[in-house]
Amino acid sequence: MEQITIKEVAKLCGVGVSTVSRAINNHPDINEETKQKILETIRKYNYVPNNSARNLKRSDSNTIAVLIKGISNPFFTEIIQIFEREVTREKYSFVLQHIEEFEDEVDVAIQLEKEKRLKGIVFLGGLSYHTEEKLKQLTVPFVISTVDVTELPDEFASVTVDNTRESQKLVNYLCDRGHRRIALLAASQKDESIGKLRLGGYRRALEEHGLPYDESLVMWTKEDLPTYSMENGYALTQELLASGEEFTCIFAISDVVAIGACKALFDAGWRIPEDCSVAGFDGLGLAAFYQPSITTIRQPRAEMAEATIRLLFDMIEGREVVKRQVFDAELVVGQSVQELDARPETGDGRGE
Amino acid sequence: MEQITIKEVAKLCGVGVSTVSRAINNHPDINEETKQKILETIRKYNYVPNNSARNLKRSDSNTIAVLIKGISNPFFTEIIQIFEREVTREKYSFVLQHIEEFEDEVDVAIQLEKEKRLKGIVFLGGLSYHTEEKLKQLTVPFVISTVDVTELPDEFASVTVDNTRESQKLVNYLCDRGHRRIALLAASQKDESIGKLRLGGYRRALEEHGLPYDESLVMWTKEDLPTYSMENGYALTQELLASGEEFTCIFAISDVVAIGACKALFDAGWRIPEDCSVAGFDGLGLAAFYQPSITTIRQPRAEMAEATIRLLFDMIEGREVVKRQVFDAELVVGQSVQELDARPETGDGRGE
Repeated sequence: MEQITIKEVAKLCGVGVSTVSRAINNHPDINEETKQKILETIRKYNYVPNNSARNLKRSDSNTIAVLIKGISNPFFTEIIQIFEREVTREKYSFVLQHIEEFEDEVDVAIQLEKEKRLKGIVFLGGLSYHTEEKLKQLTVPFVISTVDVTELPDEFASVTVDNTRESQKLVNYLCDRGHRRIALLAASQKDESIGKLRLGGYRRALEEHGLPYDESLVMWTKEDLPTYSMENGYALTQELLASGEEFTCIFAISDVVAIGACKALFDAGWRIPEDCSVAGFDGLGLAAFYQPSITTIRQPRAEMAEATIRLLFDMIEGREVVKRQVFDAELVVGQSVQELDARPETGDGRGE
Repeated sequence: MEQITIKEVAKLCGVGVSTVSRAINNHPDINEETKQKILETIRKYNYVPNNSARNLKRSDSNTIAVLIKGISNPFFTEIIQIFEREVTREKYSFVLQHIEEFEDEVDVAIQLEKEKRLKGIVFLGGLSYHTEEKLKQLTVPFVISTVDVTELPDEFASVTVDNTRESQKLVNYLCDRGHRRIALLAASQKDESIGKLRLGGYRRALEEHGLPYDESLVMWTKEDLPTYSMENGYALTQELLASGEEFTCIFAISDVVAIGACKALFDAGWRIPEDCSVAGFDGLGLAAFYQPSITTIRQPRAEMAEATIRLLFDMIEGREVVKRQVFDAELVVGQSVQELDARPETGDGRGE
């Protein structure tokens, strides 16, 4: 499709290219009438400002860094995409920095801040165990995204769901469907982030239903696999099957872990949900497209991503903000959980 | 867990912190015996060099930019992760720039090169239709990754599989299993990148087997959905089912599209592979964990990602290089394709 160029727009309006650029970029230094004329021409000829023009004003001194733990987790893919889009829209540069499991992201942030003259930072994943003192070394605004920071004072900005409450909501649903022996595919035993919070929600729901917390039904992630991976769900479920423990349902702490669990059950000749129910957490597209679709908690990813960047820019520009933003998540009922009311409480004696 | 610091390592070895840093960073300017002593101490006390120390040498003037089209495609997730790791290891900064479908990535690259004093560029996805002249405006080394550039002269560096040949290999396999009416879930009709090449491989395989190319079995991606998405596979398969055309197999041009196709078939009450076979392309982990697992072509993603960065740094540092690197991909036989030899050639007259 032939497109009109910025030069042609300038010619049609009888102005210079830089004036067109000012109109596009909403620059204050332009006559309002001229601006309207240019914008009208742009609309009329369907001119799409190309990235070069859009980016003319960006420079290294306007950079936002996103520090991410667990980049292989598909939960973050759409979030990063929205971050990148929103940061670019504000004419800032976007730097993505992957943090290894063993690395301390606050140390990395402090260093990056010096190297890159950052204007703001987003922490994505990880981070709930950090002390106030360390975070206070950061001099630029930052937002902690998709992780609860219940142990930090309110002055720290965060955007998240209540992982404990949402996990409890899901496990309540499973208990209400008649499940009494619900295995948990958990994060590492040392986890101090969302893995611990979702475990907490699981325990609260059991308690609410008068069910014991049975450690033999909790499969802890080992060090050799990334926590939020299908491979991990597969390995933990094989371990669960080999343990000989009885269970009618598996709650995996994320959807990718749930999908690994399903595959391990299928490979062992089990049917889902007839022989075992499975539930996840996150509400990935993947959970909906799996066969059977996975019952899960859908975090409002897009809204949380947009809120994160909005909050960060509001802080950068000194506007009034609500620093602690907790979003509601939604229970999504898929095809992977069976109602057990008519069955005996202890399962059907099925072995592995 | 309490960890030893770089200062404590220095004290234990009777050297300064900068000497420890030189040992860690493999700096030439250090006595070999001292270096070995330091590395031994590090191993003994399990010291983990933190990111701050590793990054001390990085600055904005050592930046590699990765320009990506289709960031939501999970095929790129692991690749980006490896890029980031390898670039960081070379003590360079890593900038990720998402390119919209309608944007011209070479324009963006030219602009970024000016703004950021880039040392090198990787184009990931997109790009096969670009003219030589435009790419020649770039003054820094660049590598085109995961896209064939058959129309460009050999002087342009690229790392890819042969998408035409690999697609042909897969469709040959389907034909050899007795399939005669293989529907194709294709990219947009305007696609000039890998979508077009994989279509070419499909046509060649049909020809090789004396089968007609039947346009009524080709479902083109519309403009409203991202090509490489489950949603697109779902929509295209619904369209195929509604068309009333007979087919015994679906070849989706990527694994995520194949998974969308499977879900649409399941939702219509079909079984896979009993009622219809499905094959994909890419070899994602997801294809292996789907139920049934998807027959696909596995691109050696990790090797291609590492080769891309190695090639780029070899060019930056003026070493001799092989500029066109074509990797072999592997046919992965899953559970989603049925052998049809015993069945009539035109299918079993099953409607929707």
